[in-house]
Amino acid sequence: MVTVALQTNHIRLQQRLSDLATIGQLSCGGVRRTAYSPEDLAARQMVIAAMEQVDMDITIDAAGNIIGRYPGTQDLPALATGSHIDTVPAGGRYDGALGVLAGIEVVATLYEADQRLKHPIEVIVFTDEEGEMIGSKAMAGTAHYSDADFYHRLDDTPIQTCLQRIGGDWSTLTTAQRTAHDMAAYLELHVEQGGVLETVDCQIGVVQGIVSLQRYLVTILGRPNHAGTTPMDMRQDALYAASLLVAAVHDAAVPGDQVATVGYLTVTPNAANIVPGQVDLTIDLRDLSLETVETMVNALQKRVQEIEAATGTQIQLERQHAVEPTLASPKIQKTIATVCDSLALSHYSMPSRAIHDAQEIGRFTQMGMIFVPSQAGVSHAEDEYTSPEQCGQGADVLLNTLLQLDRQLP
Amino acid sequence: MVTVALQTNHIRLQQRLSDLATIGQLSCGGVRRTAYSPEDLAARQMVIAAMEQVDMDITIDAAGNIIGRYPGTQDLPALATGSHIDTVPAGGRYDGALGVLAGIEVVATLYEADQRLKHPIEVIVFTDEEGEMIGSKAMAGTAHYSDADFYHRLDDTPIQTCLQRIGGDWSTLTTAQRTAHDMAAYLELHVEQGGVLETVDCQIGVVQGIVSLQRYLVTILGRPNHAGTTPMDMRQDALYAASLLVAAVHDAAVPGDQVATVGYLTVTPNAANIVPGQVDLTIDLRDLSLETVETMVNALQKRVQEIEAATGTQIQLERQHAVEPTLASPKIQKTIATVCDSLALSHYSMPSRAIHDAQEIGRFTQMGMIFVPSQAGVSHAEDEYTSPEQCGQGADVLLNTLLQLDRQLP
Repeated sequence: MVTVALQTNHIRLQQRLSDLATIGQLSCGGVRRTAYSPEDLAARQMVIAAMEQVDMDITIDAAGNIIGRYPGTQDLPALATGSHIDTVPAGGRYDGALGVLAGIEVVATLYEADQRLKHPIEVIVFTDEEGEMIGSKAMAGTAHYSDADFYHRLDDTPIQTCLQRIGGDWSTLTTAQRTAHDMAAYLELHVEQGGVLETVDCQIGVVQGIVSLQRYLVTILGRPNHAGTTPMDMRQDALYAASLLVAAVHDAAVPGDQVATVGYLTVTPNAANIVPGQVDLTIDLRDLSLETVETMVNALQKRVQEIEAATGTQIQLERQHAVEPTLASPKIQKTIATVCDSLALSHYSMPSRAIHDAQEIGRFTQMGMIFVPSQAGVSHAEDEYTSPEQCGQGADVLLNTLLQLDRQLP
Repeated sequence: MVTVALQTNHIRLQQRLSDLATIGQLSCGGVRRTAYSPEDLAARQMVIAAMEQVDMDITIDAAGNIIGRYPGTQDLPALATGSHIDTVPAGGRYDGALGVLAGIEVVATLYEADQRLKHPIEVIVFTDEEGEMIGSKAMAGTAHYSDADFYHRLDDTPIQTCLQRIGGDWSTLTTAQRTAHDMAAYLELHVEQGGVLETVDCQIGVVQGIVSLQRYLVTILGRPNHAGTTPMDMRQDALYAASLLVAAVHDAAVPGDQVATVGYLTVTPNAANIVPGQVDLTIDLRDLSLETVETMVNALQKRVQEIEAATGTQIQLERQHAVEPTLASPKIQKTIATVCDSLALSHYSMPSRAIHDAQEIGRFTQMGMIFVPSQAGVSHAEDEYTSPEQCGQGADVLLNTLLQLDRQLP
C-alpha cells in the first residue's frame, strides 16, 4: 500500500518544541503555561505564526480553538489533527505541544514538497485541555453551554473574560460545534504519559480508544475518640474503614487492564492520639469497557456495605465525574499499524487511560491516536521526556497516516 | 475498717469547676487554657486563692508546680494529690481540673471539720500536663534538663520565659525533684476519658496502672504516577501499602486489652489522578505490659517487610516516643476498692491508657488513681461531661482513701 514514505523534518520539529518550551519555562526545567495565562497567549501567537509561515488559513472559533487550515484540492470535509499547548501548573514540554507542532510539521513537509491532499488538513489547538476542555467539548457539542460558572478559573476569572482574551466568545459558543460532515476524521499524536511502550519495548502505540472514567468522592464518618482510652471494640475508626476500602479498590483492578486508584485521602482530626473521626477520599476507575467500570463500581458498593457493618462507620459515595469511553476507529487503527510497518517502526495496541481532546472529537467523527513513549512513564512533570528521534517517528507516522486516510476516505 | 465516711461538699466542688471553666471559656462551651497562656495564669491565681482560704501553705517549685500544703500532726512525708489545670487548645472543663479542685475540696472538708491527718496533705497543680509534662517530670527527675529547646512552645516562646511567667526557674529545675522520703504516696482523681465505666456500668474506676506507650513515625515511599496511564502492575502505590499497614495495626490489637491506632496520615501529592508517591503516618501502641507492646512492634515490623515486598515501596519506621508503664500500688488499689465498697459505690479495675501526671510521680513513690465516668467516653472536647454526682463521688473516694492511707502508712 504505502510505497514512498514522506519524512518530516525532525530537527525543525525539535527546534519548535524547544522554542515553545521557553514560554512559561520554570527554573526546574518544566513549563507553566496554564490556559488563558499570558504565557498561553504568547504561545498561541507563536503557533499562529508557524501556521502562517506555511500559508495556512487561521480561524479562531467561539471556544477559542485555533484552527489552521491547509486547503485540499477538492471540496471535501477536513482531515483534522492537533492537540493543546496549555500545561498543568508545573508540566513538561511534550504533553500536548508535540501533537500541535507535529501537525504543523506535517503541513510544512507537504508545503515544502508543494503537495496538497484531496482533503483540507486542519491543525487544531484546543482550548484548556488541562482544565475543563471547553475547546474540544464545544466542538463536540458536549460543553455545559448554560453553566458559565462551571468554567470559571480558580482565581475567579469568568469564562467570558478568558475566552475574550484568546479571541473566543462565550455568547456564541454553540457556533464552535462541528460534525462528521465537515471533519472526516481526527488523528492525534501524543506522548503516552505512561510506561507501557517502554516496558513492551515498542516505538509507537496504536490507541484502541480512550477509557471510560468514573470518579467518586467518598466520605467515611466514624467517631473521633482518644486513641488511648477507647478500647478497640468501642471504636468507629474512619481510617481503619478507609484502609479496607483502599485495599478493595486496588483489588478491584488486579489483575486486569482496568485501573483503580485512591489518589486523594485526608483524615480528620489527624492527630496521633485521636482515633480518626472522618476520612475523605477519591476513587478513580478507568477502563475501555464501560461494563468493566460498572462491574468495579458494583463490587465496591457491595464491599462498602460490608465495611460499614464491620467498622460501625457510615460511608457515602458521591459520583463526581463519569466520562463515556471513546473507541478509536478500527480502520484508522489498522492504517496506523500498516504505516508503522512500512516505516519499520514497532507498534503496540493499547488503551489510552488518560483523557485527551480526541475523546470529545471522537464523539462525532472517526478518531485515531498515535502514542510515542514517555521516558520512565513520567508526565505532568518537569522531567517529562520523549527523545527527538521518538518525536520525529511520531510525526512521520502522523504524516503518512494522514496520506493514507486521504486516499481511503471519500 | 472504714466506719465513718466523711463527705465532701459536692455543691461547692461543682461551683469551683464552673468558676474555673469561665477562664478560657470558648463560645462552643469548651475551654482553651493552654499552659503558660494568660488564661492559665489567671486559673493558677484562682486555685491559689482557693488553697489560701483553707490555710494551705503555697510554694511554687522551679518547674512552676503549685504545691498547696495542709500540714499534718506529725513530721511525716506528704500524702500528695492533684492533677493539672491546663487544657488542650479546645478542651473540656473536667480533664485535670477535677483532680485539682477535688484535692482542694478534700482539704476544705478536713479544714471545716477542724481535722488534720498525721501526714501533711499536698495538693499539686502540675505544669503543662497537656504538653511536655515538665511539671511532673521535673518532680520525678525525668525531665530533659539539658535540652531547653525540647520544651519551647509552638509560638517559639522559650521554656525559660514560660517558667518565669508562672514563678518557676529553668536554671534551677533540678531542685523540683522529689523522692519517696518526702512524698509517701500520690493519689490522682481524673475523668476516665474513655467509655469503659459507662459500658460496664460502674461508678468508680480503680486504675491498675498507666500503660506503656510507643509511638512510631512511619514514612512510606512509593512512586508518584499518573493514575490513568500507569497499569496496576507497574505501580509503587504508597497509599495502597499504607492501607495494608493500617489494617495490620488494627489487627495487632484485636482481640485484647492493648490498643493500636493510626490517627495521623497524610498523602503526597494527594490528587485524585495521581498514584500516591508518599504517605506519612503515626502508629500509637499502648498496653499495661511492656512485653505486649513489644510483641506488637515485632509483629508489625515483620508485616512491614511483607508489605514492602508486595507493593514495591520502602517503609521507614522511626520511634518517636517510648514511655515505660507505671503500675499502681496494689495496696492503694485495694484501699480504693475497699473505700468504694464502704461508700456503696460500684467499682471496676482497669488500666489507664491515657497519660497522666501520676505516670511520672509513680516512678519514685507509690501511686494510685481514681477514675470517674466520662459521658460517652468523650474528652479533649467541648462536650466532655461528668455529672456533679459523679464528680462528688470521686472526691469522696479521694478523701476517704487519703484517710485510710494516713492510717496505713508509717
